[in-house]
Amino acid sequence: MAAEQKRGTLVIIGGAEDREGDCTVLREFIRCSGGMKARIAVMTAATGHPQAVGNDYIKIFKRLGAESVDLVHTPSRQDSECDVAIGIIEQATGIFFTGGDQSRIVDFIKGSPLCDAIRKQHEAGTVVGGTSAGAAMMPDQMIVGGASVSNPSIDAVSMGPGMGFLPGIVIDQHFAQRGRLGRLLAALVLEPAVLGLGIDEDTAIIVNGDEFKVVGRGGITVADESTATHNNLEGLLKDEAIAICGVKLHILPHGYRFNLSTREPLL
Amino acid sequence: MAAEQKRGTLVIIGGAEDREGDCTVLREFIRCSGGMKARIAVMTAATGHPQAVGNDYIKIFKRLGAESVDLVHTPSRQDSECDVAIGIIEQATGIFFTGGDQSRIVDFIKGSPLCDAIRKQHEAGTVVGGTSAGAAMMPDQMIVGGASVSNPSIDAVSMGPGMGFLPGIVIDQHFAQRGRLGRLLAALVLEPAVLGLGIDEDTAIIVNGDEFKVVGRGGITVADESTATHNNLEGLLKDEAIAICGVKLHILPHGYRFNLSTREPLL
Repeated sequence: MAAEQKRGTLVIIGGAEDREGDCTVLREFIRCSGGMKARIAVMTAATGHPQAVGNDYIKIFKRLGAESVDLVHTPSRQDSECDVAIGIIEQATGIFFTGGDQSRIVDFIKGSPLCDAIRKQHEAGTVVGGTSAGAAMMPDQMIVGGASVSNPSIDAVSMGPGMGFLPGIVIDQHFAQRGRLGRLLAALVLEPAVLGLGIDEDTAIIVNGDEFKVVGRGGITVADESTATHNNLEGLLKDEAIAICGVKLHILPHGYRFNLSTREPLL
Repeated sequence: MAAEQKRGTLVIIGGAEDREGDCTVLREFIRCSGGMKARIAVMTAATGHPQAVGNDYIKIFKRLGAESVDLVHTPSRQDSECDVAIGIIEQATGIFFTGGDQSRIVDFIKGSPLCDAIRKQHEAGTVVGGTSAGAAMMPDQMIVGGASVSNPSIDAVSMGPGMGFLPGIVIDQHFAQRGRLGRLLAALVLEPAVLGLGIDEDTAIIVNGDEFKVVGRGGITVADESTATHNNLEGLLKDEAIAICGVKLHILPHGYRFNLSTREPLL
């Protein structure tokens, strides 16, 4: 009987992860991806500077001891049909999405043969990681953009389809550093998802099955809307302030664990 | 039998209130203070530019129709023994604290004869209002300063004695606009208070007895720590990330009401 296949770990990073000091977060990504035997594909779709950004990750991943690091540039949708790129994905033990603009990841990759290859590999156990835009794209409905340091309102957030690696969740990144509580709560009120994860800079969640653990310097803000008793969405106009009552909030730093099904921290 | 005396209303403003358009928030302060019969004392202790800041409030309060507006300058503690200042307070129907540095309000006024006069008038029904620093000083333990756009940690907030008009509560101001969730939660973990109020710019709470209502453009973020199931304060060092689980969160915009005793929104 064949061993049960297990979906790959997700490593979802809130942006601005340390690349010069302890590299706690990227170290964890490489460790999950096979450590010294890791073969990493760096996906540069999100960034307008793919070579420079990609070279940075080659340098750090090599320094941490990954066996190989290859860049997959997809500056257009056509590039996501390239057999060479698909070959890199099929050999990878870890696939890493850089920062930039999350819409470019969806526009250039989603639904392409490259996307199919990534999904197939992930289902078979390959780690998928991403930072900033590469974190935002993880849910099925992602935050495309919006206002930082704002109270929640309909125009404080714009949503769109994400890549769907972590469905039923809304993710925001650079969370505390850009004051994004308002737009995360707005996203929760606007979308059917009930769980929002605000990921701080240089901080990540490592998702295995229904659980994640936190690594890095900041915290994860978990906003659980399933306990909410009221919101004022009905009849609200675009620039009016959103009300929401009874959200359950957790702040989880390094080492903490959380169960995504029960929506409770594991203490 | 004498009519029961009632403590004056508190009008607590998150800073940057509109002074040129609808003036919703300041309009409410003047209305609470007696409307066209309001006699306002403007307390400039917090600011290093008392005349300029004071003149701004004279202009707007006169425009809204207050009967009289007097400035009370207390650039040193000695000035808080001045009989002229005390006379202004004794005649006022509304006492308004400007923005600036909340520590100056405590340092120059708390415990002085002027402070005694303010308390006596407030107990007898005089409205006390304040914006920004004038909001921060309202609790018995106030946020003196700290980090904006930061995850919660011990060094993200510094606390000190406030003026005690609204005890048992922690207030932060410019809340969404400066991304201050982290420091408000840090204050709640560090202090015995269990209720934190984050007041957005151009937004105020109007406190009467155990209830407040919200007026203005933004929202009030209510963080109720009484439901919290866990924090990691014991043994935590100054720069380490605070964990806190199970905080109840409400965002209340214009028109919403909240009961401070039951810690529940009035829906």
